[in-house]
Amino acid sequence: MKDQFITLNHGGGGKASHSLVDRVFVEALRNPHLRPPNDSATLEIAGARLAFTTDSYTVDPIFFPGGDIGSLAVNGTVNDLCASGAKPLYLSLAVILEEGFSITELKRITLSIAQASSTAGVQIVTGDTKVVPRGKADKIYINTAGIGLLPGDVPPSADQARTGDHVLISGPIGEHGATIMACRGDLGLDLDIRSDTAPLNGLTHQLLDACTVKCLKDPTRGGLASSLNEIAAASQVGIELDEESVPVGGAVRGLCEILGLDPLYLANEGRLLVVVSPERSDAALAALRGHSMGRDARRIGHVVAGPPGLVLIRTAVGGRRVLDMTAGEALPRIC
Amino acid sequence: MKDQFITLNHGGGGKASHSLVDRVFVEALRNPHLRPPNDSATLEIAGARLAFTTDSYTVDPIFFPGGDIGSLAVNGTVNDLCASGAKPLYLSLAVILEEGFSITELKRITLSIAQASSTAGVQIVTGDTKVVPRGKADKIYINTAGIGLLPGDVPPSADQARTGDHVLISGPIGEHGATIMACRGDLGLDLDIRSDTAPLNGLTHQLLDACTVKCLKDPTRGGLASSLNEIAAASQVGIELDEESVPVGGAVRGLCEILGLDPLYLANEGRLLVVVSPERSDAALAALRGHSMGRDARRIGHVVAGPPGLVLIRTAVGGRRVLDMTAGEALPRIC
Repeated sequence: MKDQFITLNHGGGGKASHSLVDRVFVEALRNPHLRPPNDSATLEIAGARLAFTTDSYTVDPIFFPGGDIGSLAVNGTVNDLCASGAKPLYLSLAVILEEGFSITELKRITLSIAQASSTAGVQIVTGDTKVVPRGKADKIYINTAGIGLLPGDVPPSADQARTGDHVLISGPIGEHGATIMACRGDLGLDLDIRSDTAPLNGLTHQLLDACTVKCLKDPTRGGLASSLNEIAAASQVGIELDEESVPVGGAVRGLCEILGLDPLYLANEGRLLVVVSPERSDAALAALRGHSMGRDARRIGHVVAGPPGLVLIRTAVGGRRVLDMTAGEALPRIC
Repeated sequence: MKDQFITLNHGGGGKASHSLVDRVFVEALRNPHLRPPNDSATLEIAGARLAFTTDSYTVDPIFFPGGDIGSLAVNGTVNDLCASGAKPLYLSLAVILEEGFSITELKRITLSIAQASSTAGVQIVTGDTKVVPRGKADKIYINTAGIGLLPGDVPPSADQARTGDHVLISGPIGEHGATIMACRGDLGLDLDIRSDTAPLNGLTHQLLDACTVKCLKDPTRGGLASSLNEIAAASQVGIELDEESVPVGGAVRGLCEILGLDPLYLANEGRLLVVVSPERSDAALAALRGHSMGRDARRIGHVVAGPPGLVLIRTAVGGRRVLDMTAGEALPRIC
């Protein structure tokens, strides 16, 4: 760690984040259950096989088209459990409130949490409330931790991609990141864009019912590019992405052109990235497309022998370039 | 809720906190597992009986005599699991960092987390790191959620106190709260005082091995007074506390006299409050005293029929007064 102080890049889900997690947290807390880049731990307690995960949510603004910090806090943790192959069951809810925050807005967020929990079929079973003085937080920060039940078979994991495997995505990318970006500042843009925040358990259940998969990822902070890099590094394989086949909606594409952004780095909050063996690829794609949240699922690339850890992108004009993990983040407090 | 905005009182663990939790969170999220004032939910998943709890830590200062925000975040959640009668097993760790925070201090806190986890016999198995811009947090906030294994019998719960039961405390009260208070501002006091932050699992294990108990509480925010009020309200009984018998160390008593505080309202982070039937009271006291963390355990009161929900204190001079739950808190960010 050459840095002496925390920068916004350390929270971006890219290289600086990974370096901080590895060199500070994993180094000091090392144990067999702690296995980044998987978001959930898999545990066996008294014969029950469980997934356990946590995430804090600091999104700004707290209300945005398509959702709010409450629904995001439920869906994000539900999706981390789904990505481990688990059936999400129970969440904890801990809020840090800034003195002066509106109780009306808090009630609105709590109702959104209740609705999102009900949609995802999970229950909030324990909680905590802290208040800090004005200027020591920004309105409300939420942490949810979640417990899910793992099925009998080997759970999907980022280190299981093998040469020849296919890479699928469940729908158009970048919608959450683009929405938050469009909400901030005074861009004066009139774009019809909404966050994709949604629980992935229905879609994941349908997929895993149809076939075994190698890796599942919920490509949030750092976007599709960072999730692909995590899989390539953990599995020590290369990944070739076909740029043309990656689904990007018109509004997201427009915003990216105006602001000079790459949708591959924008956060998603309701998309599933799947790595599956070639013989199961058609079944997986059909299972995704058979669910309302996976109608636009596509095959977007495949796993190659190497260079290990590298993601290459075949561009529309026929070239190839390295799709690096982002060094920092375009925008803090995206989720 | 007549208040329109969040005040520091809503985070104090007293009346305002309880009202916020009941009228906003419990109201919207109601389900059979959500059962304040118990800090942990008790769940049955695939035959395993588990306790699940969460707490955020925003303590200021982050380093204090006897501990730091890292050890507090481990011990606090371990103790919530212990108070449900569970054996703590696994914790999650989520940090919110302020841009500009020192990485050297972060490493020191992480090592403290590692040491506290090792002492308590738990593992940190999953985590999350968020960074917010300068001025949107204060250095570092930590959330830990925890999973513990429940034994076969009925777990202790705040609603199980009955007339005639005895009330015990495992040691002198108010040391964490007094330490944080002495650290703040420029009191210019030279007191030999340290936080009591410590994991309660050894002590709890020894107690529960010796006898069944009715209620267990870890009297943190709001102190012994708030925990007794929670038990009285949940069990619909009265509690009579014998002021003379409550152990208070000399330094805590000194600070309270100087600042005009009542040690009964100061936070504890390594004390166990026990309600036990009269016939098991001697065995419970002996079990507590047989452990290094319970050497100074005392019987401090008993449960009476009524008035239901009321805690009465018999003062040194022979009078009786109501020991109310604190309306707010003496100090924000105590834990």
